[in-house]
Amino acid sequence: MIVVLRPGTPEAEKQKLIASLEENALRVDVSEGVHQTVLCLVGDLTPSYADRIAALGCVESVTRVTKPFRLSGRREHPEDTVVEIGSVKVGGGHFVMIAGPCSVESEEQILAAARAVKAAGADLLRGGAFKPRTSPYDFPGLGAEGLALLKLARAETGLPIVSEITSEAQLPLFEDVDLLQVGARSMQNYDLLRELGRLDKPVLLKRGFSSTLHELLMSAEYILSGGNERVILCERGIRTFSDSTRNTLDLSAVPALHELSHLPVIVDPSHATGRAALVGPMALAAAACGADGLMIEVHAEPGASLSDAAQAVDCDSFAALARRVRAVREAALS
Amino acid sequence: MIVVLRPGTPEAEKQKLIASLEENALRVDVSEGVHQTVLCLVGDLTPSYADRIAALGCVESVTRVTKPFRLSGRREHPEDTVVEIGSVKVGGGHFVMIAGPCSVESEEQILAAARAVKAAGADLLRGGAFKPRTSPYDFPGLGAEGLALLKLARAETGLPIVSEITSEAQLPLFEDVDLLQVGARSMQNYDLLRELGRLDKPVLLKRGFSSTLHELLMSAEYILSGGNERVILCERGIRTFSDSTRNTLDLSAVPALHELSHLPVIVDPSHATGRAALVGPMALAAAACGADGLMIEVHAEPGASLSDAAQAVDCDSFAALARRVRAVREAALS
Amino acid sequence: MIVVLRPGTPEAEKQKLIASLEENALRVDVSEGVHQTVLCLVGDLTPSYADRIAALGCVESVTRVTKPFRLSGRREHPEDTVVEIGSVKVGGGHFVMIAGPCSVESEEQILAAARAVKAAGADLLRGGAFKPRTSPYDFPGLGAEGLALLKLARAETGLPIVSEITSEAQLPLFEDVDLLQVGARSMQNYDLLRELGRLDKPVLLKRGFSSTLHELLMSAEYILSGGNERVILCERGIRTFSDSTRNTLDLSAVPALHELSHLPVIVDPSHATGRAALVGPMALAAAACGADGLMIEVHAEPGASLSDAAQAVDCDSFAALARRVRAVREAALS
Amino acid sequence: MIVVLRPGTPEAEKQKLIASLEENALRVDVSEGVHQTVLCLVGDLTPSYADRIAALGCVESVTRVTKPFRLSGRREHPEDTVVEIGSVKVGGGHFVMIAGPCSVESEEQILAAARAVKAAGADLLRGGAFKPRTSPYDFPGLGAEGLALLKLARAETGLPIVSEITSEAQLPLFEDVDLLQVGARSMQNYDLLRELGRLDKPVLLKRGFSSTLHELLMSAEYILSGGNERVILCERGIRTFSDSTRNTLDLSAVPALHELSHLPVIVDPSHATGRAALVGPMALAAAACGADGLMIEVHAEPGASLSDAAQAVDCDSFAALARRVRAVREAALS
Repeated sequence: MIVVLRPGTPEAEKQKLIASLEENALRVDVSEGVHQTVLCLVGDLTPSYADRIAALGCVESVTRVTKPFRLSGRREHPEDTVVEIGSVKVGGGHFVMIAGPCSVESEEQILAAARAVKAAGADLLRGGAFKPRTSPYDFPGLGAEGLALLKLARAETGLPIVSEITSEAQLPLFEDVDLLQVGARSMQNYDLLRELGRLDKPVLLKRGFSSTLHELLMSAEYILSGGNERVILCERGIRTFSDSTRNTLDLSAVPALHELSHLPVIVDPSHATGRAALVGPMALAAAACGADGLMIEVHAEPGASLSDAAQAVDCDSFAALARRVRAVREAALS
Repeated sequence: MIVVLRPGTPEAEKQKLIASLEENALRVDVSEGVHQTVLCLVGDLTPSYADRIAALGCVESVTRVTKPFRLSGRREHPEDTVVEIGSVKVGGGHFVMIAGPCSVESEEQILAAARAVKAAGADLLRGGAFKPRTSPYDFPGLGAEGLALLKLARAETGLPIVSEITSEAQLPLFEDVDLLQVGARSMQNYDLLRELGRLDKPVLLKRGFSSTLHELLMSAEYILSGGNERVILCERGIRTFSDSTRNTLDLSAVPALHELSHLPVIVDPSHATGRAALVGPMALAAAACGADGLMIEVHAEPGASLSDAAQAVDCDSFAALARRVRAVREAALS
Repeated sequence: MIVVLRPGTPEAEKQKLIASLEENALRVDVSEGVHQTVLCLVGDLTPSYADRIAALGCVESVTRVTKPFRLSGRREHPEDTVVEIGSVKVGGGHFVMIAGPCSVESEEQILAAARAVKAAGADLLRGGAFKPRTSPYDFPGLGAEGLALLKLARAETGLPIVSEITSEAQLPLFEDVDLLQVGARSMQNYDLLRELGRLDKPVLLKRGFSSTLHELLMSAEYILSGGNERVILCERGIRTFSDSTRNTLDLSAVPALHELSHLPVIVDPSHATGRAALVGPMALAAAACGADGLMIEVHAEPGASLSDAAQAVDCDSFAALARRVRAVREAALS
Repeated sequence: MIVVLRPGTPEAEKQKLIASLEENALRVDVSEGVHQTVLCLVGDLTPSYADRIAALGCVESVTRVTKPFRLSGRREHPEDTVVEIGSVKVGGGHFVMIAGPCSVESEEQILAAARAVKAAGADLLRGGAFKPRTSPYDFPGLGAEGLALLKLARAETGLPIVSEITSEAQLPLFEDVDLLQVGARSMQNYDLLRELGRLDKPVLLKRGFSSTLHELLMSAEYILSGGNERVILCERGIRTFSDSTRNTLDLSAVPALHELSHLPVIVDPSHATGRAALVGPMALAAAACGADGLMIEVHAEPGASLSDAAQAVDCDSFAALARRVRAVREAALS
């Protein structure tokens, strides 16, 4: 850890601090600059100890050198992790295409979507049953019934299923779900993450919409440190001042996460952009920059009840997009 | 709701949409502009119905007119809500001073802090027992034992206590806590909010660090709609590009929330700035712009183990600050 | 324009406002909702008139319906604009590759870079002569001499040249520069934009790092409305909380700008990411999502003086990248 | 400067880098950690040299220790600077109240405003003549005529005047303006800043709406390093995701700038919030947290042409606000 002292720190205070650090079993390398002193600490420090040092009046800044990603980091685990969901593989050269509706609404709806995305080449079926909604007055999803319908769709199509869990209390209901999704709003629900760390089941961890990559990896660390090594990361847009899309898709997070971590990284262009017309271009861009997969909202009959206009990516568009995604991926790797 | 159609929408598609809306029991006022048509919809729409309309190909934008804050909004409830925590009142002219350490660390520590903040004029004692930490390797708080120590401090000083709850599973442990705090990371943990709505106990709801005021009020709505009317809002800094403070304290949220809502609004300058030297100025600013209270981290012996330097707001500084806060508040109201 | 009145606006005040609007030659369609009234105004309003209405006490919000992009917008100009820089075409299916060093440093340096990027297939040579630097104590570029060296490199390689202009006072020096670049910091230097609008010379307009797409197009409008129709837009990263890259490359701006405007849109992954290792993936992503070109910083001998390590994209990497960019582009269009 | 090497950097590469640094007259203190090596460099480095080191493949990060604010920083200039504008003093305990309309519109308008703000206790009169407008189709201000009207108002009231300059070409027109304002959009117009550095005239430098405090001070440094020591800084709101105000007023910038710099810091709550109802609370908050002054938009007859409703802060409200600002300031200093 690097500690920069304020200009003009009295020699006595400096020596007292160094002595105190050394008592805590740290080696202290001192570099005296023209105006300021830099202390390089070598040894094990907890974050809270670092916080206490940072709070000292004579300390201008504290910077950690070693990345704190003990289990998710590249350094200790240089090879790409391949996460298996049944027979589907993600990461290390394996690309996954997850598709399906935002929410499970009815048997008819989810079966139609499942058949269509299967035909278009999807590997997994998505569908929300417990929906975190900004408003308490809005449709919260079908809950347990939604999960049952998803399983029905799996039985018919053979596609493994993924759905969002929002509380550790729902765990019993998710026993037979193939991939558990932690949504952006829950990325720092540490009680939930700890429970997921105890499972023998893959987890799809979405980046919070104002989380740094550091924070995303520390949340993965909660799951990994519980013993569950099957974590897939997902970029889904961050919150910025820009108002032309619902969120700003941060695609540079894909190669940046690949540098920092061995975990697979997929991209959700649907929630990121919030507009069907932008999903295609952003899906292609994600494939081009090295994402290990995509999660795309697909509807079998978008907007049927209201008009003929396209509400979201329909099945034909998805099939065409999936083909182009594969072509772009190959070209990018060429 | 206001629906703007794209330029060049065919007349037939427009008529079909209007017919469909009217079938859904909405009145549609049509305004034909030079290039575009505007539909004003009158009647009850769920957010998901609005979403479906927004997704139509011929629709450029959808804007809700009526504010969705049914219970937290000023319109239906013009008078300020006064929240009572034992004999302490917050809102409607009553100002609350909450103080205490970030975490409960030991009996000695919390008793010393409790006595000191009581002497300095604090109304409530804060202290974390379940700490949401970015890293799984860091001190997670003393848990149940921390709450027990807090109650001890309450018994001695008479100060009501406030502590953060991070999961509905912890509810039994919080039965005897006077004010339940929902932290920034949990502001959209709707499962937790729903449970808090069923309690007969005041809740301190902190703004998520990238939440809009709209989202904060919708989270309050989760609690209120469950029947619990005792909600206090708290601004604690938002995440921005600015790197000179840990977060950017958004003080304009105080008057803006007072316009939108009848609920009390307090400010936490400690977490917002992350630096003891800025806590004082920001506490005074919060009092000046009409906040209904402050929550400040205070330590009886900051940094004792490491040096003489001030780690955070110490008790004497807090006492002096509390005095100036009262003076500024009076001057601002003059 | 849509004007929403506050709940409870007295009937007399409403009628007075409507009368005043009608006196200003606007048609007013009134929609009476349950709680609030919506006025749809039809006719020509200046932004300042809209501002004055917005400021009225009885007005809750004012929303403009018609997009204000008179010359840069798609509506009046549905076809893609193709900008010509000598024999190089950009937009409407023509892809441009701009490459070269950040700053012109010496004759030897710029000639080596020019030869190398030409060999790798670049269409234009970039090189900064007037560098806007955050610090007044840093290298501000070679100025007029830098432009002279750029022209030398053009004479040898035949590549048209692009360089940044920071003040209208520099215009005489840029007479013989092929493409004038307006940097992110100058995107709202309207005095400069107005002068560029009077030229018969293409302009590369970079998005300010905290500008919305609306603001970018309004800045383009300054140039177009002066009579200069040759404007190329450039996304180069926006400022967000995210700290893993220098800026956050907002690639969804590419398809979003293509929807709004007929002007070509290129991407600068070098300034956006600030890290050589991320330039390649982001260049491929930009090509995949439909960008009309790329601007990439390339050095002939990166880091020669200090070590063998790669400082930035070297010429061989650039040549390989250019090949993959073309392959990805073809695959995305397939 | 602190250079952190990547884990696994070969010893030979490390030694080569150290030798190269020492050749450049830097002292290098080496701290070998468990996984990574830290180099503390002592000596003079230009920013571009630091950039080149940062770009090396073996370098993970580079951090500057000494603050680069040679002239604006507290370290070399511990006492508060007091800027004099005629007989008006700002900073070092002197509080300035600047008021007036956004734009000069007519003789009648500016004279009425000038008389009113003078009566309410303002120290300076503001009024825009050259307005940077997002749209080229909107009112750009009265230009030279606007400045002439401002001077007329000064002649009548005795109030010194402040107006915004947007290009160095306008300098001759501003010869007789008392305080030159650099707007947020021009904060990094270095050509303009350099020219202002050559004047014997105070400058009001507004923070760019996405500028860090570091960048603001470096822009001040451009003016100071030219020999002009009379610079006043102004916080006027930053761009964030928050949508309840036009910008987010970053009041913690006031004490943070006071720590870093000796220059006076004032606050503009009008542009920050964009809503008259929030100007008062934010003005009081600014006074409470130690601002050296305020700049407030005041209109003598807000909204007269349209309705009786208040468009902005009217003169009576301003007079009452000015009184409360003084009371809060005294209380905060008590």
